Amino acid sequence: MNLVLLFPENMLTDRQAKISGRQLEHIHSTLKSRVGGTLCVGLLNNKIGTATLTTLSEKEANFDIEWHSPPPKKLSVTLIIGLPRPKMLKRIIQTATTMGVKKIYFIHSWKVEKSFWHSPWLSDEKMLENCVLGLEQAKDTVMPEIHLKKRFKPFVEDELPKISEGSKKLLAHPGTQTACPVNLNKKTTLIIGPEGGFTPYEVNKIIEAGFEGVHLGERILRVETAVPVLLARLFTC
Amino acid sequence: MNLVLLFPENMLTDRQAKISGRQLEHIHSTLKSRVGGTLCVGLLNNKIGTATLTTLSEKEANFDIEWHSPPPKKLSVTLIIGLPRPKMLKRIIQTATTMGVKKIYFIHSWKVEKSFWHSPWLSDEKMLENCVLGLEQAKDTVMPEIHLKKRFKPFVEDELPKISEGSKKLLAHPGTQTACPVNLNKKTTLIIGPEGGFTPYEVNKIIEAGFEGVHLGERILRVETAVPVLLARLFTC
Repeated sequence: MNLVLLFPENMLTDRQAKISGRQLEHIHSTLKSRVGGTLCVGLLNNKIGTATLTTLSEKEANFDIEWHSPPPKKLSVTLIIGLPRPKMLKRIIQTATTMGVKKIYFIHSWKVEKSFWHSPWLSDEKMLENCVLGLEQAKDTVMPEIHLKKRFKPFVEDELPKISEGSKKLLAHPGTQTACPVNLNKKTTLIIGPEGGFTPYEVNKIIEAGFEGVHLGERILRVETAVPVLLARLFTC
Repeated sequence: MNLVLLFPENMLTDRQAKISGRQLEHIHSTLKSRVGGTLCVGLLNNKIGTATLTTLSEKEANFDIEWHSPPPKKLSVTLIIGLPRPKMLKRIIQTATTMGVKKIYFIHSWKVEKSFWHSPWLSDEKMLENCVLGLEQAKDTVMPEIHLKKRFKPFVEDELPKISEGSKKLLAHPGTQTACPVNLNKKTTLIIGPEGGFTPYEVNKIIEAGFEGVHLGERILRVETAVPVLLARLFTC
């Protein structure tokens, strides 16, 4: 946790806040902060500041805040991913959020096990929790949107054209002709298959929607590795 | 598992092998293979081939192999990482191995908890297991070397100059002046701090050894994300 993310309900005044729970635990056990000590805080979808601890107990911490910076720049990308299995899902949400992705669609596809759609990690509460962890890691405050799309064909035919309008359209798929571009740094819609990949039918549907297949070399990466690798190649700092 | 990695003890003749255990389980439950079916196999530190199943039972599978390709190209990098906590360690070993890293040093530093050095994940058996998983994901056969260095100063002063000789020397460290180069594609020694980073003293020692600090932008990444991001920027396909 490199920043404590505050929600409106944490705010007592514009410049005073209180926290409890997981964040308080972190202040006690990892940061080992004391009254008078400072830490980095950010207000949800808003500025970043320096907080000075005014009270600290087992139950609650209070602090005064000097706001000083906007959140870091977001990545200009919409990420569309075949729904991964639960233990990967949380890591992918955290990683994508940490790297600055603000729009993620998890979609169904042939190789996505139906049971994955019943995972408790897809609850609003759990997805929010993993986004918060990702933002706190990156010192960011801007909550990503996550959408769940349980039907492949209606999504690709009816929604994808609108979602990807005016963007570079890339499908990461092993075995395609073109290597993933480096340093693209422009508005992109990036589709990544589930573990095991899209079926040829699904690949064709996505290509028909105007997407170009790109590969990452001969090594096949896990989806949780492909996400940071693709983002790192496309968007450089 | 995109390739079944075979060890010398799996080989019955040059072109016949048998497997059991985890790999057999995968053939039954994920690939749902039958006698006469084919799968991708590789011999440790050697070629890749196509195997045709000749017998298949609950206890063992036998197959004939046609060897056809060398393993994929390795990354020309030596990775040196502050020892991560156990659950990250196994993911980092798998990810680095999948991406083609063949030499990894895990080193001590101020912010590495002493207890991490007693993790069962550092046993030869567990590290081998995670390397095998990484190789099988990437369709690679060449086992990486992993070294454990429990003392920071002797490592940096006495061993690092030799290890990094003739290579581009990079220290990934947030807040440095220079952005990580993109598309470097040359022999590199890359040092990555532990969670929480190196101390100023440690950074100075590494800079004194001829290393240049590079950053990945204003977002702070977890070590397990920084590894694929750095490798993806430095080495493009």
